[in-house]
Amino acid sequence: MSNFNEILAAAERAKGHICMTPFLNAPDLDQIAGRRVFIKAENLQHTGSFKARGGWAAVSALTQTQKAQGVLALSSGNHAQGVARAARAHGVRSVILMPSDAPQIKIQNTRALGGEVVLYDRAHADRDALGNALTRAQGLIMIKPFDNPMVIAGQGTVGLEIAVQAAEAGLKKADVLVCCGGGGLAAGVALALADQAPHLRARTVEPLGFDDVARSLKAGQIMRNVQSTGSICDAILTPAPGALTFPILQNLAGSGLVVSDDQALHAMALAFSSLKLVLEPGGAVALAAALFDPDLGGDDVIAIASGGNVDPAIFMRALTEFGA
Amino acid sequence: MSNFNEILAAAERAKGHICMTPFLNAPDLDQIAGRRVFIKAENLQHTGSFKARGGWAAVSALTQTQKAQGVLALSSGNHAQGVARAARAHGVRSVILMPSDAPQIKIQNTRALGGEVVLYDRAHADRDALGNALTRAQGLIMIKPFDNPMVIAGQGTVGLEIAVQAAEAGLKKADVLVCCGGGGLAAGVALALADQAPHLRARTVEPLGFDDVARSLKAGQIMRNVQSTGSICDAILTPAPGALTFPILQNLAGSGLVVSDDQALHAMALAFSSLKLVLEPGGAVALAAALFDPDLGGDDVIAIASGGNVDPAIFMRALTEFGA
Repeated sequence: MSNFNEILAAAERAKGHICMTPFLNAPDLDQIAGRRVFIKAENLQHTGSFKARGGWAAVSALTQTQKAQGVLALSSGNHAQGVARAARAHGVRSVILMPSDAPQIKIQNTRALGGEVVLYDRAHADRDALGNALTRAQGLIMIKPFDNPMVIAGQGTVGLEIAVQAAEAGLKKADVLVCCGGGGLAAGVALALADQAPHLRARTVEPLGFDDVARSLKAGQIMRNVQSTGSICDAILTPAPGALTFPILQNLAGSGLVVSDDQALHAMALAFSSLKLVLEPGGAVALAAALFDPDLGGDDVIAIASGGNVDPAIFMRALTEFGA
Repeated sequence: MSNFNEILAAAERAKGHICMTPFLNAPDLDQIAGRRVFIKAENLQHTGSFKARGGWAAVSALTQTQKAQGVLALSSGNHAQGVARAARAHGVRSVILMPSDAPQIKIQNTRALGGEVVLYDRAHADRDALGNALTRAQGLIMIKPFDNPMVIAGQGTVGLEIAVQAAEAGLKKADVLVCCGGGGLAAGVALALADQAPHLRARTVEPLGFDDVARSLKAGQIMRNVQSTGSICDAILTPAPGALTFPILQNLAGSGLVVSDDQALHAMALAFSSLKLVLEPGGAVALAAALFDPDLGGDDVIAIASGGNVDPAIFMRALTEFGA
């Protein structure tokens, strides 16, 4: 099981390769939320999302033999870029299995980072079976997007930075809202905060209709989403929490939050006008919850803005529908 | 005349009120430019531009008597917000004279920061005469947008940070491209670099048709722009370099660069896709020169992304015309 020491080790291996992203705030967002809102801007991370951390942690932990075999990643696009970047920097071959409806920007960027992209139909193909077949046929090492201890440890380095930055900002007690697909970022951040800043509590945020983690936490067992497509939050439409991530969340996270696609678009428009940040829908759900969830408590809230890889058409939709 | 010690003093007064903005880069921008490109993201500064620095430096340097009088600022919008924010934090009244065609976001934000906005017609009114009349009638202290030693010192704190961040990134010799209206930022940065990082050289970047600084540097005397409107780069359409800023630039800056409005829009689209940053046209001209100027030399270049206060319509134009 992932633990805090692995997060520290991942942070050590990431030095010089992963940047400490800024911790921002804006008075007009505080006003909308009715409390102080701090934004951890992981969209400014290399590759445009926090996934560069998990990718780096996983690839840098491989043995020489494993590196020579090459790696395979299953990803809607952000994990793809994180793994491709880390693989190239380590001289490792990377094959990336991506859904054919992934945003063009993610497919292009993954290729530009040296990833060999293989596309599949999200609605009909069995991604896991395809991935297993590819790893067997080509002798690749699979790097799962969230249910991998090294990936969780890498994402946990976001939590280490939040602990430091929240202390600098004088935050006492706050919820840390985390955009959540399979729970890799949320689990890593929860582990880091439990050790470094136990007054900060991780809470997952998911899109309406894809609230598997929130329902799983409530039920006390892993629940699955009914549908696999139908939200603009492409980065976080995972079928169910992971076997590794779920127990960590059950142990350390608060109850899960849910926002609508429209709230995610609204948060994107506000990040544009108030923060000057480009967020993708799946990277904006935590900010959306921070701004619009009526049941949120406390004087302060922290939202991780987890990614910014969005096609212009979706971004323009946010500005058209919710721009001032 | 402004000097380096005033910049250090401004940095001291700004502690806890101005943030150290990130120093970013992206491999695909390096590829376009044919050299490494580093971006100093001043659009992430409070109020969405570097002008928060000069505003803070000027207001925090006022005597108690001056503070009781209140301040007046002439601004197309970014200086307005910088002064309004600093004034409110110091309990000082601020009156802001803005052109009626300034972006709505800048007018709204200035009002939200407590500034009393007075609009004028940029094409017909004499801004300076209006400003002088207002200061006399209401006993206000004028804070000029660039030709003020405290403002130049405040903007110079950007240069202090660049000196530190460029050293951390291992940069040896590079041009530092600065979006330039009246030259306050360029002069402040040039002064800071001359002292802290003489291997880095400030160079101004202006919009085509508003290249008063480039022509003045070439002619060895202050030259004026013919027109006062006609570019989307609203933040930097100043008629001529200042009496204080020009000698500093003449002494310390390299030759001036010029980019077209289309190049600024293209740079905005690339900042969206590669950096996840929202830039306004006038805040993107330095990045545009870094990416597209064929006469730029050296292995590395630094571009200050000076602001991000842009109306959605102009941003969507950049994405529509130049988005991938």
